[in-house]
Amino acid sequence: MRFSRQIITVEEALHRLLERLGAQGVEEVHIGEAYGRILAEDVHATEDLPHFDRSPLDGFAVRAVDTVAATPEQPVRLRVVETIAAGNVPQVALTAGCASRIMTGAMLPPGADAVIMFEQTENPAALSDEVGIKRALRPGENVARRGEEIRRGAVIAQAGEKINAGTLAVLATFGCTRVSVVRKPRVGLLSTGMELLDMEQPLSPGKIRNSNTLMLSALIAEAGGIPLLFPSLTDELSCAKKRLTEHLQQVDLLVTSGGVSVGDFDVMAALTDEPEAELLFNRIAMRPGSPTTSLLLYGKPIIALSGNPGACFLGHELFVRPAVEKLSGVRELQQRRVMAKLAVSYTKPCPHPRYLRGRLGEEGGVLYAWPDFNEKAGNLGTIKDSECFIVIPAGGSGKQAGELVEVLTHAAPSWRR
Amino acid sequence: MRFSRQIITVEEALHRLLERLGAQGVEEVHIGEAYGRILAEDVHATEDLPHFDRSPLDGFAVRAVDTVAATPEQPVRLRVVETIAAGNVPQVALTAGCASRIMTGAMLPPGADAVIMFEQTENPAALSDEVGIKRALRPGENVARRGEEIRRGAVIAQAGEKINAGTLAVLATFGCTRVSVVRKPRVGLLSTGMELLDMEQPLSPGKIRNSNTLMLSALIAEAGGIPLLFPSLTDELSCAKKRLTEHLQQVDLLVTSGGVSVGDFDVMAALTDEPEAELLFNRIAMRPGSPTTSLLLYGKPIIALSGNPGACFLGHELFVRPAVEKLSGVRELQQRRVMAKLAVSYTKPCPHPRYLRGRLGEEGGVLYAWPDFNEKAGNLGTIKDSECFIVIPAGGSGKQAGELVEVLTHAAPSWRR
Repeated sequence: MRFSRQIITVEEALHRLLERLGAQGVEEVHIGEAYGRILAEDVHATEDLPHFDRSPLDGFAVRAVDTVAATPEQPVRLRVVETIAAGNVPQVALTAGCASRIMTGAMLPPGADAVIMFEQTENPAALSDEVGIKRALRPGENVARRGEEIRRGAVIAQAGEKINAGTLAVLATFGCTRVSVVRKPRVGLLSTGMELLDMEQPLSPGKIRNSNTLMLSALIAEAGGIPLLFPSLTDELSCAKKRLTEHLQQVDLLVTSGGVSVGDFDVMAALTDEPEAELLFNRIAMRPGSPTTSLLLYGKPIIALSGNPGACFLGHELFVRPAVEKLSGVRELQQRRVMAKLAVSYTKPCPHPRYLRGRLGEEGGVLYAWPDFNEKAGNLGTIKDSECFIVIPAGGSGKQAGELVEVLTHAAPSWRR
Repeated sequence: MRFSRQIITVEEALHRLLERLGAQGVEEVHIGEAYGRILAEDVHATEDLPHFDRSPLDGFAVRAVDTVAATPEQPVRLRVVETIAAGNVPQVALTAGCASRIMTGAMLPPGADAVIMFEQTENPAALSDEVGIKRALRPGENVARRGEEIRRGAVIAQAGEKINAGTLAVLATFGCTRVSVVRKPRVGLLSTGMELLDMEQPLSPGKIRNSNTLMLSALIAEAGGIPLLFPSLTDELSCAKKRLTEHLQQVDLLVTSGGVSVGDFDVMAALTDEPEAELLFNRIAMRPGSPTTSLLLYGKPIIALSGNPGACFLGHELFVRPAVEKLSGVRELQQRRVMAKLAVSYTKPCPHPRYLRGRLGEEGGVLYAWPDFNEKAGNLGTIKDSECFIVIPAGGSGKQAGELVEVLTHAAPSWRR
């Protein structure tokens, strides 16, 4: 299988991988540590929101019926019977000819059915016992009715949603201080290759420092996984298989970089020929990273990325990120594919779809995609600037500036030109 | 100043605030804790990348001159003198008629100036002592030249950049295990309002649970600050001033929510009249959140947001996030403003620009903005779904579907329709 590889599309490869992954179990966390986690269950409103009729502004609570004759020239005079601060319970029910001074967020007094803002009254000073109402109000005007935002029992957040600052706000409002979330997947991580030095080590001829492990560790944490770093793998197959098998006991997914190609020492490629391995794919119609491989070892998933930093990054975004999200219980797995106009021509021929790193810009409401133009896929100096992958279709003609191309976004666009 | 407020634009308000803020000092951290931090200094390449001529593929290193006559029908036969694994130092210099078997990432042997992939050779098996080269190679073909990606001394990352996974990769490659970053700003956080309950407390009439503090805490951490939570503020002015003054000693910026309007108990509004306060702004031409206020107290900055959750969220994104970024040393402060076509008409008149929460979509390469249509700005149930603010200009006509509108993005678009 290692040398005679069956080529499949990116989409088919992703499908084969994801269908073998299920969501982790559930755990309960305090709301204070829930940011970024994936909800395991729908959350329902425990009360109406607001849970009482309240004033959305500073002014006077009135009975609309008392204001029908009011005009700026001939204000209706009402007797001020109470001042209601937010948080207080009104003590006086409004009767004909009366108003209560009321603050933003405060509870409406019984009998009141409208609120007029200070600016539309005469003599709104705090200690006055009378106020002039300068316009007629409709019943219900400027009243936030009980339950008008959210009804008790309504779903306020759904299983599979990622908890962000806004989710925390709505959970806090309903007092949901304990939250059921999907357990974070543990993702083992290691590199292969005898050329790798630790990043602390001085360079020596022929050797390079390992940059993929740290990069992948950050990306996996971003995707919602817990990265567990293991030492680099030897190129001796039986020893490597033993090590991987041990690591797999501790993780939900194992990600490796390097050793997937046809080189003499490509241990991850060799592994796919072993009887304990179930190959999912080892050749993908894409550049870079066509030998990106996935297999199950004793039923546990391994994604073996290319060692080339650019291909490793692409492989993570195409396969590892969705895998981590699936394991994390994310409801809407999405690759964030959009169409954009190619900002400059790219005509290099390629037998397979080419994934160019780039940026997204906008002009006059139209999306533009700017390739990075790092001809060397391994160019790791510009990975940090990448916001998306621009897909150049297979074939000899590439794409001209202004043509629509498919774009996979992987970061918030900076919208730089 | 509290009642006779001078109205200014969002842009002018932001300018007044940011010009009073400088970046924090510098600290050195290990690369393992550098993710998300802002670089304090440019980082330079300590070596060439790659630091030796290397092979980008698995194949044979050759002298191009030996291959000029090679064709698929009449391969040139070369003697294989060595196998060079990645990480090894070649032991044999190539001479006429010789080739070295070479792996991806391995160092080129002296004398070699091109590499041919296995697939273009005859008899590439590992133990063979001869190989057939089936095509002519140009000098330099398939060779990653020393320094071709990054030259020693080149800037690999700039002061003011946020460190992401790609930055970590390039820093690790050059062995930059200690990184100078800008100290994270400490951002004090408190709410005002006697109506607020802690989120653990049961509801009681007229009271609501505090949701802004937890939301702001998450948003400030996202923006790069360290949120420090203080207890809610009393509405008694002299006591509040004393408390705020004490808190300001411990933080670089203080953010409050609530108490900015014209209500009788609006303590943050009252504070702007105190002699120790230097008012930056307290009325902004925007909806919601027009009373959003900023001041310096004894020279230290306070941003006082509206207590309304929707206005509080908008105020954070418009003012607090850029302020935290400026304090954090972010180089390119940007509001991420783009133009997009309004997906559905919005015709509600407004005397000031209205910031509608919404989402960004794409169709045929054109950006579309979908308003949330929560008419109630305080609607906190949909803050979690917001990706952008759609700016509806002041005036009575609003905007029709299909018209271009300004959009401020604040999250990675989901591109949902």
